[in-house]
Amino acid sequence: MTAGQPLHTDSPQPQRPRHVTTTTGNPPAALDAGVVPSYPPPESDADESWVWSQIKAEARRDADAEPALASFLYATVLSHPSLARSLAFHLANKLSSSTLLSTLLYDLFLASLTSSHHSNSILSAAVADLVAARSRDPACAGFAHCLLNYKGFLAVQAHRVAHVLWAREGRRALALALQSRVAEVFAVDIHPAAAIGRGVLLDHATGVVIGETAVVGDNVSILHHVTLGGTGKAVGDRHPKIGDGVLIGAGATILGNVRIGDGAKVGAGSVVLIDVPPRCTAVGNPARLIGGKKGEDVMLMPGESMDHTSFIQQWSDYII
Amino acid sequence: MTAGQPLHTDSPQPQRPRHVTTTTGNPPAALDAGVVPSYPPPESDADESWVWSQIKAEARRDADAEPALASFLYATVLSHPSLARSLAFHLANKLSSSTLLSTLLYDLFLASLTSSHHSNSILSAAVADLVAARSRDPACAGFAHCLLNYKGFLAVQAHRVAHVLWAREGRRALALALQSRVAEVFAVDIHPAAAIGRGVLLDHATGVVIGETAVVGDNVSILHHVTLGGTGKAVGDRHPKIGDGVLIGAGATILGNVRIGDGAKVGAGSVVLIDVPPRCTAVGNPARLIGGKKGEDVMLMPGESMDHTSFIQQWSDYII
Amino acid sequence: MTAGQPLHTDSPQPQRPRHVTTTTGNPPAALDAGVVPSYPPPESDADESWVWSQIKAEARRDADAEPALASFLYATVLSHPSLARSLAFHLANKLSSSTLLSTLLYDLFLASLTSSHHSNSILSAAVADLVAARSRDPACAGFAHCLLNYKGFLAVQAHRVAHVLWAREGRRALALALQSRVAEVFAVDIHPAAAIGRGVLLDHATGVVIGETAVVGDNVSILHHVTLGGTGKAVGDRHPKIGDGVLIGAGATILGNVRIGDGAKVGAGSVVLIDVPPRCTAVGNPARLIGGKKGEDVMLMPGESMDHTSFIQQWSDYII
Repeated sequence: MTAGQPLHTDSPQPQRPRHVTTTTGNPPAALDAGVVPSYPPPESDADESWVWSQIKAEARRDADAEPALASFLYATVLSHPSLARSLAFHLANKLSSSTLLSTLLYDLFLASLTSSHHSNSILSAAVADLVAARSRDPACAGFAHCLLNYKGFLAVQAHRVAHVLWAREGRRALALALQSRVAEVFAVDIHPAAAIGRGVLLDHATGVVIGETAVVGDNVSILHHVTLGGTGKAVGDRHPKIGDGVLIGAGATILGNVRIGDGAKVGAGSVVLIDVPPRCTAVGNPARLIGGKKGEDVMLMPGESMDHTSFIQQWSDYII
Repeated sequence: MTAGQPLHTDSPQPQRPRHVTTTTGNPPAALDAGVVPSYPPPESDADESWVWSQIKAEARRDADAEPALASFLYATVLSHPSLARSLAFHLANKLSSSTLLSTLLYDLFLASLTSSHHSNSILSAAVADLVAARSRDPACAGFAHCLLNYKGFLAVQAHRVAHVLWAREGRRALALALQSRVAEVFAVDIHPAAAIGRGVLLDHATGVVIGETAVVGDNVSILHHVTLGGTGKAVGDRHPKIGDGVLIGAGATILGNVRIGDGAKVGAGSVVLIDVPPRCTAVGNPARLIGGKKGEDVMLMPGESMDHTSFIQQWSDYII
Repeated sequence: MTAGQPLHTDSPQPQRPRHVTTTTGNPPAALDAGVVPSYPPPESDADESWVWSQIKAEARRDADAEPALASFLYATVLSHPSLARSLAFHLANKLSSSTLLSTLLYDLFLASLTSSHHSNSILSAAVADLVAARSRDPACAGFAHCLLNYKGFLAVQAHRVAHVLWAREGRRALALALQSRVAEVFAVDIHPAAAIGRGVLLDHATGVVIGETAVVGDNVSILHHVTLGGTGKAVGDRHPKIGDGVLIGAGATILGNVRIGDGAKVGAGSVVLIDVPPRCTAVGNPARLIGGKKGEDVMLMPGESMDHTSFIQQWSDYII
């Protein structure tokens, strides 16, 4: 079987909800139509219903095929009536400790996930993140794979809860305790004050650090070991502002209150200390800006296309 | 509320002990004088008493305000008669496993923290580290925040215990077991033979690696993903020697038995393979040396001022 | 005591099995002949028997000397009749969770480690990895030290099991669940489809990411924070192919379906986007190729000699 392909793609795909837009031309492959219902979901909460039905179908398939995982999949997915409850249970299990009980965390996560701030709810952002991982990461084997196994996904959802505690509810000590547990368990350190958009993918995620006054837009993809850090000397607004559709390669370090414009790319290992205009690519240490790829489709946002390589010909200058 | 500010700064600060010197001009903000006693502490063990009283006051405030943390704060801070016992309990809880019991670790940590090697005790170094985090990290919300939540702080204290086991007590197998648990739990890998000074801040800390023959001076600040590594081919003395007051940016890699002089800076993402003179700044891959900031106060040590950015104008050369 | 030296080297070393070849000239120091039997082992499974007898002798010595570790060493090493059972027990303990039980994992690991695919068994690869760590890492205090404490070693063995589940047994959901636990517990993220050779050392290991279609040869040494990643835009075969005897320095990022030839070196912090010929060294961001060290013994493979520094004179160009 070709590596990187979803498990079941040999049958017609079920119709996806109309307003799940993927600009990459690689819509997430759905399960076999015989496995998961393909009806067009109702308009309201459509993505959530569709994604949750996919997750359940995937979990059912895996539980049937793999006895070693059946009990885990039942407890974490199949026994739950909703994505919110499944995610709250899974996060609480991962982040609990001898001093921070999973029952307390479950209640906390469930309350946040089902809060009535509907216009930009944590749950709908989580669904957008699941779709993002499924669309952009060739190694993502399904929505359940991301929900259960991606520490970047789980870290971001825990952060969303911590952010509400910090920014709306004034429960800062609890928000900081959550940040700390996420940093330990997932090696992802996001200050609860940081604002993170929807459809965000933290791929691999180990070592990601996002500072207190950082802002990350929608449909952004961030690889592991990326730092959105302060310059250290300042208090107040001192961290990067990342636009929509930005792609930040592995190990890139962006420091200070700089702006990375919409659709910009930051190459792996780059050290970025000043602004990057929209649609530009920054590479190197220190980073310099280079032009876009010839013939590049300007409608494709790098954060969604995950094209890390447009700059190779211009940039890499091997001397043998 | 402005991000990065301590929770209570709107009332007069209690008098700080006379000999807590902070050269940065940013003394840690203390709690509201109505919350924590402001008497000048006695001379002996003054910092410890003062810092411990602050920690208890912060924990009491948070336990009152946040029922979800009350039991954790009581078990970890408020039920303990001293900082040494609180820290030993917290570390033991974090590092215990099914095969390394928390009771054993608690006894081990407590014995090390209250050892009579008073001139350079682990406890006084831990206090200096707490003051360092509070002074230098704008995101540090209080001493209790650092004690409870900073994996860099906890990793360094566990290292100090492992170092005593290794260097003074000949208990190398236990020292290596501790190193291993710290590397797993906090993703910070410090060989127990490495010598680490006082007032050290490992900010964020994920991925820090410090080799066997490395030496780190006093008042040093090290960001996440920093490596003080060997060059691989040699045995014996093969790791960097970091002077006092040095600041090492995120992702910097310093390899070999090189000297980083007092007050030097190493920029984020730099790869440093040879000596950096005192007060110099090394940036880039491979690192080159650049001059200091114009008008920079030569009394400020970068490890304390956390000024990562003096070199931006000279160094970063964007080509658009 | 000199740092970096094994604990017992002052007595004649026992004869090592004939076919443990170490090309580095630094054979692993064995225990005191009075502690461990020095008979030449039988031909079949010779390395395993010899290494396992060393591990037991080291564990016995440490259990006698260090009561705090006696119970751990008994449960993890001394109570087991074979290396396979000891390793399966230890890995299962490390990777178990409230939802993935250690008994299930123990059975799974033991079955894989004792599988009859003898020509390239996981167990013999694990033995080669133990010898690699002992030979190449000056900080490795013994085989038991590596078996018990090296998260790189443990991550690679768990990966080998996951790889069999993925590639031979079609149990992909379980393979992905294992990958996820290893990424959480050890901060090492290796896709189960990746093919990893024998005699591999992941030194420190924190943050290593190895993608789905990556291939790693025999006798390769990889430092922490190394990425063998995709370029993001492609599906299918999109990750690096690492030859035999390659050495990859800390923080190096290698992206795309590029070939790193046998005996090549990649410097710390390098960003490599195109092929590196055999025996060449790539350094910098973006990486460029530089010649080998003058007088370098061409029989020494960098992955085994761990010489990170041949290029310093040519490469590092300090401007003061």
